[in-house]
Amino acid sequence: MRIKLTVGYDGTDYSGWQIQPNGVTVQEEIEAAVKDLCGTVSTVTASGRTDAGVHAEGQVAHFDTDFSIPPEKFAAALNARLPNDIRIFKSEKVSDDFNARFSAKKKTYVYSLYVSDTINPLKDRYAARVNAFDIAVAKDVASEIVGEHDFKPLSATGTDIKNTVRTVYKIAIKNENGLYKIAVTGNGFLYKEVRFIVGTLFAASEGKIKKSDVTEIFKTGRRPERITVAPARGLTLKKVSYGKIR
Amino acid sequence: MRIKLTVGYDGTDYSGWQIQPNGVTVQEEIEAAVKDLCGTVSTVTASGRTDAGVHAEGQVAHFDTDFSIPPEKFAAALNARLPNDIRIFKSEKVSDDFNARFSAKKKTYVYSLYVSDTINPLKDRYAARVNAFDIAVAKDVASEIVGEHDFKPLSATGTDIKNTVRTVYKIAIKNENGLYKIAVTGNGFLYKEVRFIVGTLFAASEGKIKKSDVTEIFKTGRRPERITVAPARGLTLKKVSYGKIR
Repeated sequence: MRIKLTVGYDGTDYSGWQIQPNGVTVQEEIEAAVKDLCGTVSTVTASGRTDAGVHAEGQVAHFDTDFSIPPEKFAAALNARLPNDIRIFKSEKVSDDFNARFSAKKKTYVYSLYVSDTINPLKDRYAARVNAFDIAVAKDVASEIVGEHDFKPLSATGTDIKNTVRTVYKIAIKNENGLYKIAVTGNGFLYKEVRFIVGTLFAASEGKIKKSDVTEIFKTGRRPERITVAPARGLTLKKVSYGKIR
Repeated sequence: MRIKLTVGYDGTDYSGWQIQPNGVTVQEEIEAAVKDLCGTVSTVTASGRTDAGVHAEGQVAHFDTDFSIPPEKFAAALNARLPNDIRIFKSEKVSDDFNARFSAKKKTYVYSLYVSDTINPLKDRYAARVNAFDIAVAKDVASEIVGEHDFKPLSATGTDIKNTVRTVYKIAIKNENGLYKIAVTGNGFLYKEVRFIVGTLFAASEGKIKKSDVTEIFKTGRRPERITVAPARGLTLKKVSYGKIR
């Protein structure tokens, strides 16, 4: 049977989701827990890889197993075999044509930041520190990013994906008790796209680019060097939505 | 001259504020930074010790030094010598009769908690996980704790303090996006008093004690075994207030 997992992790001490030669990854930890529980090796496929240092509160993954326990019991059984900074919130049986990656319809990432001259040790683990942030300017520039665009200039190079057109449905920015949160929802994201979108808002907030520069980026496919990628620590994969799951 | 420091720290990896034979403490780290900067040993005195694992966003401390830099520059100079999980937010010159401990007039601690069957890796570092929390019951019982009482039964034994009468001015409880915050303000707190106050609210919320039991605790000076100390991870020293500082 195919099991769908809803997963949360503190990404600080991991080299991202995807298994790689150097560094411990979240996928590796979960696959080890599955092997220990079920006795057989299963590949655990996520909705998408998250970068080193990126967190998740609603990552979704699936794996296949013949191990016969009630589907909802996998969560607790795997948690007993996982470190505390990775937790399975929910496990459920899904049909064999459900695929955590390819069935995903919508994703929401939340980027957290705080304004301070000094690192705040109680905020810095899950948020990026910036010297200044202009929420009105950021909202205005965000409205230009929302929509269907070729996001290649706002992503990391080196990806072998052919179609780089994606749709950002919404960018919501709010101030929650001194922590700014930028929620970006789209049908899917290229490698480092969310962090470049946030980097664009940072650059605008600091007066380094204008709204018209965003129009220009999408028109020319070139990103000005003044836009840099926002730090991984502030990013959390909040939710992955699927259509009706049988 | 005497320097007042406003300090924040992530207490997770520290054995509390106060220097002790086993384990690294916040005081020890700051004193090492002062020694490295000034070349001489100074005792750094805080408003009060915080327990192992307790955090601070507004701890206050003072030390004396002949090292001659503008007082406001100590913050950055010490931060350059401290790990990122301890930060000096502010440094200022105060008169020699200011004492971070004895001049303190009022302190506010904030206790954070979340309700979940499973650990949430993104909340668990700075909040305690509970299975259930009844905010109405907690508020009602908190109203019985507010006031001047002998808090000995709601503190840890073994302290050599004679006068155990303290005043809790206010207990404010609110739900901030799924994180409950209990803010406790008083003129001073006994060892583990805040964590026992929170433990009392937890016990009430779980139906283990009633409001009248709190009246009884203060009357008899005995704490029922059903009340246990709340975990350190959820507690943050938020603010220490002083009278007029010259």
